[in-house]
Amino acid sequence: MNFLEERIKKDGIVKPGNVLKVDSFLNHQMDIALLNEIGREFHRRFADKPITKVLTIEASGIAIAYPVANEFGVPLVFAKKSKSVNIEGDMYVAEVESFTHKNKNQVIVSKKFLSAEDHVLIIDDFLANGCALQGLISIAEGAGATIEGLGIAVEKGFQIGGRVIRNLGYRLESLAIVDAMDAETGEITFRAQ
Amino acid sequence: MNFLEERIKKDGIVKPGNVLKVDSFLNHQMDIALLNEIGREFHRRFADKPITKVLTIEASGIAIAYPVANEFGVPLVFAKKSKSVNIEGDMYVAEVESFTHKNKNQVIVSKKFLSAEDHVLIIDDFLANGCALQGLISIAEGAGATIEGLGIAVEKGFQIGGRVIRNLGYRLESLAIVDAMDAETGEITFRAQ
Repeated sequence: MNFLEERIKKDGIVKPGNVLKVDSFLNHQMDIALLNEIGREFHRRFADKPITKVLTIEASGIAIAYPVANEFGVPLVFAKKSKSVNIEGDMYVAEVESFTHKNKNQVIVSKKFLSAEDHVLIIDDFLANGCALQGLISIAEGAGATIEGLGIAVEKGFQIGGRVIRNLGYRLESLAIVDAMDAETGEITFRAQ
Repeated sequence: MNFLEERIKKDGIVKPGNVLKVDSFLNHQMDIALLNEIGREFHRRFADKPITKVLTIEASGIAIAYPVANEFGVPLVFAKKSKSVNIEGDMYVAEVESFTHKNKNQVIVSKKFLSAEDHVLIIDDFLANGCALQGLISIAEGAGATIEGLGIAVEKGFQIGGRVIRNLGYRLESLAIVDAMDAETGEITFRAQ
């Protein structure tokens, strides 16, 4: 087990309905030392890529993406979720349909901050059905940027998102892939990587 | 002028209606080196305080609070904005009325992550009417925590928020206080501190 899998095993809480709570260290209260370690690990994994921007989505994605951008020494851009159709200024917009919530949201990034010259590393904390990540890919592709890879802290391997994105040919690195969870025993099974 | 005032002068854009755009370096695209400097500055200003938690609010607050929590070596907790009245679990809730948008929002933090033992530093990127900050204060007070201070990157000194919070007796440190802006000339007047 790597450092993140160990931490999930120690402090993650399995709830009925395949819910994994990591809110004591990853996405509500944040352990900065752990996040800094995540930043170093993604930097190590994508060190061969000429990254110019780290792209994430609000809100909890920002805390994972910060240390990654810090390691690469590049700007961090975060996409905003918006329900409004009235976007002021010049924005890249992706319509994202939520598999879970059965509704549509817009994900927006100002055109000032992504261009065809950019080599983008997309970062987020969680990957399940991949709706948010597909929106970020759509925005980066729309900008003509090169997507050098995607880095996820926790992937739910039994949901469709990871498979879809790998099938599309993107290099997706998840630090922990949860293949099964048992709410009765609290047991979490990680995919061997 | 300090480093943040200089950067605002260089890259901030004044728009009609007293709008100050700092989205190229502070709250949409983020200059991580600048944010790290902000983290060091708040650490210097509150070094005499026994901070145990940094508290902020999603989304852009997270990127300011991250380097501050990193400097203090303490966890970062971010409050979530919620429109729903149906809060699952045990949450501190503040009802926040937006002066600008004339609507009410809830700001929530899990009770697991704030307690009477905590010494809290509240951090946010912007202070105008102070609605969000008042919600964070209400939550920290509700937890019985000690609010050691509040740190803001950019305060609009001509709006009411800063005065209200200082009048309440809190120690509020804003790295840049904008006292006036001119959309015609682009000129920004900072308060001497």
